Amino acid sequence: MRVYFTFDPRPDLKDSLVKDFPEVDFVFHKKIDEEELAKAEVLVTYGEDLDDEKIKIAQKMEWIFVASAGIEKMPHRAIAERGIVVSNVRGIHKKPMAESILAHLLSIKRALPFIYKNQQERIWSQKTKLYELNGSTALILGPGAIGGEVGRMLQAFDVNTIGLNRNGESAPYMNETHTIDKLKDLLPKADIVISILPSTNETRYLLTYEDFTLMKDSCIFMNFGRGDLVRTEDLIKALEEKQIFHAVLDVYEEEPLPRDSKLWEMDNVTISPHISSRSSRYLERSFEIFKPSLRKWMNGERDIENKMDILRGY
Amino acid sequence: MRVYFTFDPRPDLKDSLVKDFPEVDFVFHKKIDEEELAKAEVLVTYGEDLDDEKIKIAQKMEWIFVASAGIEKMPHRAIAERGIVVSNVRGIHKKPMAESILAHLLSIKRALPFIYKNQQERIWSQKTKLYELNGSTALILGPGAIGGEVGRMLQAFDVNTIGLNRNGESAPYMNETHTIDKLKDLLPKADIVISILPSTNETRYLLTYEDFTLMKDSCIFMNFGRGDLVRTEDLIKALEEKQIFHAVLDVYEEEPLPRDSKLWEMDNVTISPHISSRSSRYLERSFEIFKPSLRKWMNGERDIENKMDILRGY
Repeated sequence: MRVYFTFDPRPDLKDSLVKDFPEVDFVFHKKIDEEELAKAEVLVTYGEDLDDEKIKIAQKMEWIFVASAGIEKMPHRAIAERGIVVSNVRGIHKKPMAESILAHLLSIKRALPFIYKNQQERIWSQKTKLYELNGSTALILGPGAIGGEVGRMLQAFDVNTIGLNRNGESAPYMNETHTIDKLKDLLPKADIVISILPSTNETRYLLTYEDFTLMKDSCIFMNFGRGDLVRTEDLIKALEEKQIFHAVLDVYEEEPLPRDSKLWEMDNVTISPHISSRSSRYLERSFEIFKPSLRKWMNGERDIENKMDILRGY
Repeated sequence: MRVYFTFDPRPDLKDSLVKDFPEVDFVFHKKIDEEELAKAEVLVTYGEDLDDEKIKIAQKMEWIFVASAGIEKMPHRAIAERGIVVSNVRGIHKKPMAESILAHLLSIKRALPFIYKNQQERIWSQKTKLYELNGSTALILGPGAIGGEVGRMLQAFDVNTIGLNRNGESAPYMNETHTIDKLKDLLPKADIVISILPSTNETRYLLTYEDFTLMKDSCIFMNFGRGDLVRTEDLIKALEEKQIFHAVLDVYEEEPLPRDSKLWEMDNVTISPHISSRSSRYLERSFEIFKPSLRKWMNGERDIENKMDILRGY
C-alpha cells in the first residue's frame, strides 16, 4: 500500500511511522506531485492542495487524512462522488486554543502588557491596577469541544461559565447553558464574552454595535472563532467609545489584518495574528490520530477516528 | 472604643465599617499621629509605620491589625513585652499571586510577548513557536498556601506538580512532595521551577549557579518568593549561558532593581516589579478579615483570625 504525504514531517515522526508500518510505502513531498498522486491509496494533506482535477488524477485514492480541522478548501463534491473516505484531526486545537484564551485573560487581569512595556524602558513602576480573574462571569458563544475546554479551565479559576448554543442543551463545564436568542439578556451580566463560533449563516454578523453597548464597561471581549462574527466598523466604534474594557482578537474579517486598520494601535485591543490554535506539538498529535487510523485501515476496518461527512462539512 | 487607621481606605469600605459598628469611634489618617496613637485601643496599619517609641506612646493599645502579610518592619519585642495582640491578613495574597504565576507561564508558552511586540509595529507575523503548558512537570519550592493554590491551578492544566518542603510531608495539590535536600535530584526533571519561599537562613542563596546547570535548557524559572533565594550574578551567568529557557522574576536582591542591572534587557527574562500579589480587591479582602475580628473583639473574644506570635514572626 502507498501512503502519500503532501508535506514533509519532522524526521523523528517520519522515522517512527516508517518503522511502525514496514509493509507500507511512504512518500513524503513538500508539494503535490501528480505522478505520486495517481499511485497512492492514502493521502495525508493539510487540505489546501486539492481540487477537482487532482481528485480525477488520484485514481486509486480511497482515504484522505486531513492534518487540519478545516476542510473548506477541499473539492467536496468530487471527493463525495468518488466515495473517498475523509478523516481529520478534529479536537487537536482544543488544548492550545484554550491555553491561549486563558493566557490573554490572565495577562490583561495581571497587567502583563504594563510589565513588558516598562521593562523595555527599564522602568520600575508599580503604578497600575491588577485585577483578578476569579469571581468573574464568562459568556461562551459556542460551548463545543474548545469552548468546553475553556470552560473547564475557567471553572478552575472560580469563573462562572454560561454557554450559549443553538438548542440550549447543557454542555460540559458550563454552569448554565441557554439558547443563542437569550444573548441580549445575558450580555449585561458578563465580565468576559468569548466567541469560538464557526462561520455559518446564523453566526455571520451575529454581534452588532448594539450588543457591545449592552456589555459592561469592564467587559473583555474575545473573538477566537471567525472574523465575520462582527463587522470591523461596529467593533471599532464600540472600542473607541470604551463600551467595553478590552478586546482580544485572533480572527478578522480580512486576514492578514490590513496594515492601515485602526485596530492595530488601539490601547484596548490585542491583535493576535490567528495563531492561538498553533502548537509545537501539533504534528505529534496529528500522528497520534493518524497511526491508529492507519492500523485500522490496514486491517480492513473503515470506522476510523474523526471520519467526516465531506458534504455536510463536519 | 477607639479604632485608629493609619491609612485612609476607600469611601465605600469606610462607610460600611462605620455603619456596621456605630458603637466604635473610628479615626482615619493618612499618616501616623502621636496624639491619636495615645488614645486608640485598636490600630489598623500596613505595618511599616511603627517603632519602639510609637509603641511607648500607644499606652492604650491592645490589638494591632496589620493589613499586610509582612511584619518584618514592626518593633517585635516592644509589642510582645506589652502583650499587644497582633493579627494580619495572611492568605490574602494567595489568589492574585497564583493568577500572576499562571499568567506569566501561559504568556510565555503562548507567545504573548511576541504578539504584543508585533502589534506595536503593526506587524502581522505567525513566525514563532507556540508551546503548551499541559503535560509539563513543575517543581514548587514552598508548597504552602500560595504554592498550593498554584498547584491547584497547574493541575487543572494537567501539569504534574512536585512540592519541596522542609519535612517532605505531602501538601495539597502536589502530585508528590519531597524534602528540600532532594532538590538536585529533582531539578533535571522540571519543566518549570517556581519558588514562593520566604527568606530564612535556610532559603538564603539556596539556589546556586550549579543548580541552574542541572535544569533543562527548556526550563522556566520563576522567583515569586524573596530576592535572596539566588545571587543575582549566579542568575545572570546562567541566563547568559542559556542554561534555562526563561526566568520570570518578581523579587530581587535589591529592590527596585537597579536601572543598570543587566537583567532588564535580557531576552530570556521578565522583570515584574514586585507586584504579583497586588489586587484591586486587596482592601476589600482585608476588611472581610477585619470586620468579623472586630466583632469578636467587641464581644470580649480574643481568638481572632490570623492571630500571630510576633516574636516567631508568623
